[in-house]
Amino acid sequence: MSAAATIPSTRELGERAQRMIDALAAISADPDRLTRLYLTPEHRRAADLVGEWMTAAGLATRLDAAGTMRGALPPGRSGKSANKALLIGSHIDTVIDAGRYDGNLGVVAGILAVEVLKARGIQLPFGLEILAFGDEEGVRFPVTLTSSAVAAGTFDPATLDAADEAGTTLGEALKAFGTDPARLSGEAYDRPGVLGYLEVHIEQGPVLEASNEPLGVVSAIASQSRHRVRIRGEAGHAGTVPMAMRHDALTAAAEIILEIEATARKGKKHSLVATVGHVEVMPGASNVIPADVRFSVDVRAADDAARKAAVETISNFARKIDRRRHVVVGFETVMEKPVARCAPRLQKAIGAAVSAVQGKPARSLMSGAGHDGQSMVQLTDFGMIFVRCRAGISHNPLESVTIDDMGAAVEALVGTIVELARQESGPS
Amino acid sequence: MSAAATIPSTRELGERAQRMIDALAAISADPDRLTRLYLTPEHRRAADLVGEWMTAAGLATRLDAAGTMRGALPPGRSGKSANKALLIGSHIDTVIDAGRYDGNLGVVAGILAVEVLKARGIQLPFGLEILAFGDEEGVRFPVTLTSSAVAAGTFDPATLDAADEAGTTLGEALKAFGTDPARLSGEAYDRPGVLGYLEVHIEQGPVLEASNEPLGVVSAIASQSRHRVRIRGEAGHAGTVPMAMRHDALTAAAEIILEIEATARKGKKHSLVATVGHVEVMPGASNVIPADVRFSVDVRAADDAARKAAVETISNFARKIDRRRHVVVGFETVMEKPVARCAPRLQKAIGAAVSAVQGKPARSLMSGAGHDGQSMVQLTDFGMIFVRCRAGISHNPLESVTIDDMGAAVEALVGTIVELARQESGPS
Repeated sequence: MSAAATIPSTRELGERAQRMIDALAAISADPDRLTRLYLTPEHRRAADLVGEWMTAAGLATRLDAAGTMRGALPPGRSGKSANKALLIGSHIDTVIDAGRYDGNLGVVAGILAVEVLKARGIQLPFGLEILAFGDEEGVRFPVTLTSSAVAAGTFDPATLDAADEAGTTLGEALKAFGTDPARLSGEAYDRPGVLGYLEVHIEQGPVLEASNEPLGVVSAIASQSRHRVRIRGEAGHAGTVPMAMRHDALTAAAEIILEIEATARKGKKHSLVATVGHVEVMPGASNVIPADVRFSVDVRAADDAARKAAVETISNFARKIDRRRHVVVGFETVMEKPVARCAPRLQKAIGAAVSAVQGKPARSLMSGAGHDGQSMVQLTDFGMIFVRCRAGISHNPLESVTIDDMGAAVEALVGTIVELARQESGPS
Repeated sequence: MSAAATIPSTRELGERAQRMIDALAAISADPDRLTRLYLTPEHRRAADLVGEWMTAAGLATRLDAAGTMRGALPPGRSGKSANKALLIGSHIDTVIDAGRYDGNLGVVAGILAVEVLKARGIQLPFGLEILAFGDEEGVRFPVTLTSSAVAAGTFDPATLDAADEAGTTLGEALKAFGTDPARLSGEAYDRPGVLGYLEVHIEQGPVLEASNEPLGVVSAIASQSRHRVRIRGEAGHAGTVPMAMRHDALTAAAEIILEIEATARKGKKHSLVATVGHVEVMPGASNVIPADVRFSVDVRAADDAARKAAVETISNFARKIDRRRHVVVGFETVMEKPVARCAPRLQKAIGAAVSAVQGKPARSLMSGAGHDGQSMVQLTDFGMIFVRCRAGISHNPLESVTIDDMGAAVEALVGTIVELARQESGPS
């Protein structure tokens, strides 16, 4: 590698990252927008390009049975950690009409970190593996985190029967991609051989931009639950039913929606957020009192107990409305995911590296969005570096990260690896 | 008329009314449901049947240029009121998939009242005209109350260009019906020749049923306005935007919706009602903070000033929300109709007749729904008798009125006519 001859500047790293991001963004199912779904021909082309970059950086590449491109760097020296590997990854699948940084930046940052380590002549006491996962977004199949679940050894074979919109099952798609579903169970890492999992990812939120900080340390991927609320009242003519005789499903819903907001506001300490995003009001005529209102509730927090307590508060409130307004309120939980906590030792190492790179203390923040770390935390310690993105916009072609921030992210990842190497090299 | 030989009982009147209602309900555009729109062949068939009943009751019939079937009874005796007519009417058009009593009952009650007067040998000091209007519902054309506006002399010729879904204009439809739009302006009653306008109509609300009263006296047809509210906030990821950084259009809407309800509840004295019936929440995904919410507001009251004050309160509140939540609230008035007050002397006459028929004091109530009286009040004094209907259901095949209540309604209409005759027969 010629790049190993000189040590690139932060700016140069950012520019390298942007060129690699742009090359990946050119690989799409659609000519005019970025769409790259799991196990599609464009997924394969992106994985192959990532493999070429890995090879150029001196990594031994292998496409695993789940379609994850893995690039391995052996340990640079012997010692107690020489039989272990630090995993670094993110995903190269996208949503439909996606931004180019989501996922892809983490893979690119991992490859560039290897190049920087080489250029600086740093020999690590452990191995490195850079992972380019293929199914974080869960757009093609009604399952998500397939490829990281395979790496973590938590893949459920029943999901092989999950089908995409064309009726192709996950199992069939894996075969068409050229892999063998029977090999999936053999692709899990052995726990003792793994030191931890690190991921660089755009924040997909507005916090770092608002605080004018390029990078942040993720404390956890949120505990999350989704609920469906249905309120049945009684339809009636908007002109002929006196207020006192109404069973208005919408005004009952409005009370619950405000209680959801108030409950979340009280949980700032636990990074509690709650959102009603989908609402249907029936029959929906301007001169008819609403008889039936359905809405979604999405609750997330840095802590399972805090989230559960909030859901309890909300559903108790809904039950009270029920009696007070003589409507019938149904409250149903449709999804629940536990918190994925980042390991304190990794948060500490990342925090030190981020502080050094950005010249001010690193902010700790929760990830409200899901990530491959939710699988990997079941295998090993997990740590995550967030990169500022413009206006918090993601899952949108307007997604934007500055070149300097990408360079800083690579530097912080390198700093974290070096700090972990220092720790592993200590007296055994 | 053989029916004139004996005086029918209240029950018999109700049974007659039910048979006539059922005969009209059989005249529909659809085989399986009742749909009878203005100036359609089924409107013509229904008008012809009404005309036959009028003729049988001894009335001189005429289909006016707006398609209204008019049946006239000359004064029974000479005197100061002999050159005047009391108008009694309602409409025979229906909504799509309608109930059978809405409108039709008022026309049937008018015809039966004439028969009762005859059977009782009552000679009136004024003429009677029974009117079967054809366009109260406003379903076919984007205009309403066409036929009563023609009778009242308030018809706007510009509406002749209003077109139905098939592109047929009102003017063309009148011609196809066999009338001449140029004759419309000549169909208005002369004010000095009209004594008043009475209408029997189902309540279309739950008040009389709840108070266990067959009939009620309408005080006014509500002052009404319709508004469109639009709230623009900012979309964001449900997991990544902290509560304090949100500009949630839905929670802002929820506050306004509850304020609308609270404002209406405070206006019970003015029969104030306010309804948000149509709501759109965009983008509408469960994991996206709502950026754009639009909803309808319908406000009605027995008094214009009370309604306007309520709208003022609501729009001021919306403006405050705007600043407090950093969203943009638009509040637009799309329709405004003044109150149509029932004449005190007619309310008094109806109240006395209703009390006598039902054996307990008559309740006075506002009509929240619109009626032909909104046109007729511009011509003459207007009075209205409400008839209890099951569960307040209307504009629905489940619309239901008991036979006894229909008989009582005819008796109350007769009682009102007799009371007015008594007043007109006083010392001149």
